Amino acid sequence: MDVQKIVLIGAGNVGWHLGHALYDAGQEVVQVFSRKAENAAHLAKAIGSQPCHQLQQINANADLYICAVHDQAIPSVAEVLAAQIGSSKLVVHTSGATPSEALAEHFPRYGVFYPLQSFSKEKAVDFTKVPMCIFAKAEEDQAKLLQLAHRISQQVAVVNDEQRAGLHVAAVFVNNFVNQLFQIGYEICQDQQLPFEMLLPLMQETLDKVRENEPAKMQTGPAQRGDQATMERHLKRIEGRADWIKIYTLLSEIIAKQKEK
Amino acid sequence: MDVQKIVLIGAGNVGWHLGHALYDAGQEVVQVFSRKAENAAHLAKAIGSQPCHQLQQINANADLYICAVHDQAIPSVAEVLAAQIGSSKLVVHTSGATPSEALAEHFPRYGVFYPLQSFSKEKAVDFTKVPMCIFAKAEEDQAKLLQLAHRISQQVAVVNDEQRAGLHVAAVFVNNFVNQLFQIGYEICQDQQLPFEMLLPLMQETLDKVRENEPAKMQTGPAQRGDQATMERHLKRIEGRADWIKIYTLLSEIIAKQKEK
Repeated sequence: MDVQKIVLIGAGNVGWHLGHALYDAGQEVVQVFSRKAENAAHLAKAIGSQPCHQLQQINANADLYICAVHDQAIPSVAEVLAAQIGSSKLVVHTSGATPSEALAEHFPRYGVFYPLQSFSKEKAVDFTKVPMCIFAKAEEDQAKLLQLAHRISQQVAVVNDEQRAGLHVAAVFVNNFVNQLFQIGYEICQDQQLPFEMLLPLMQETLDKVRENEPAKMQTGPAQRGDQATMERHLKRIEGRADWIKIYTLLSEIIAKQKEK
Repeated sequence: MDVQKIVLIGAGNVGWHLGHALYDAGQEVVQVFSRKAENAAHLAKAIGSQPCHQLQQINANADLYICAVHDQAIPSVAEVLAAQIGSSKLVVHTSGATPSEALAEHFPRYGVFYPLQSFSKEKAVDFTKVPMCIFAKAEEDQAKLLQLAHRISQQVAVVNDEQRAGLHVAAVFVNNFVNQLFQIGYEICQDQQLPFEMLLPLMQETLDKVRENEPAKMQTGPAQRGDQATMERHLKRIEGRADWIKIYTLLSEIIAKQKEK
């Protein structure tokens, strides 16, 4: 039988967007929990649900419990939740970095419902484009989660713990580290009194080029060409910025090595 | 008086897209030069122009000569061109990395017409979104170049040599180096037998978040949170990939420092 009633535990960035996605898909979220009564009330109101700010008052009659809490809070939430709803329910977490077994001690029917995206409450997201990484211990539960995931997203995959941990590392490279390189571009523009907007079309093109091609095949620039003169001129230009020089040197070396492969 | 007749020297990636942009804007390109007759003919045909593959046959009656050749070829092209058209013409190059003075020896009316984008012939580009960086030695010529640039692009700026050199370094960080981080994400997905497409929405969101915000303010992730446990788990997961560990360590350090600012 399909998942009918869902309890959403956590009203942070992930809970907020997931709650809205479920609501938009016509899926009933019977209760929203947040330790902060105000946050629970705010999200519950937005998605036609009931707020709750004490785990001891969690509705024990739902089909699925989604723990969208901080990674570190998962074990303690699981423990209190088990005392309240028993151990027979399907319980999932939404964490990229946490093994699914984090829930196994209390819930034999554990699983993962991980949206691979960086969420902020202030910024709307088209959830249908968010890849959903699904896993459940029991095959039957996995089928339920898949069906639910397909209702809110166009990109759904069964992803085991090993794979999800890999994706989480990859996300650090393509999100956190890329963002830091963007910051360097931003600061160079500031130094030159030019608007950062001038770099945005190039940044977008860099991304668009790898939509259908292996990034290494799209590489250009002085390191790729082995153009030492340009690289030396660039390094001279950023002298005094030791960190930028380290990044420039390291990534240029790695691009040159990549080329040899 | 406006620029009427243009000669385009070079039919590579930049020449190809610039030629099309000028043509689309209704601007007359009277001649297209490429050392390779075939390339000159191909582009000339596409934009209703005349091909030419010998610099000695360059039309001497144009208002503007755009040198869209490789950086290293600029001095030699300028020399032969001067012998053919004299020294009174407005001549610009399209290079991000080359000082405008590279043309000064032969042409007192020198300038720069630099589109800040990474072009490939195979990939269409909306040139109206390409930032045009303009400079000319003479104010009058600069006004002409600005007017012309505004006909093909919505984003036009006067950019001096110092600023353009800064942009060129910034482009390496936000394009070449970002692309190498994308490659690491790609390889992690391959290792995990997952489609790289799963990372694309996150990559797009990373970019979209900095369209209106300083990147440092949008930073998230373990380095930003000072989450040592997650970082150690990540490093363990990529052990055996020495280069990835170097990047992970360096960029995490720099993100942590950035946070303190």
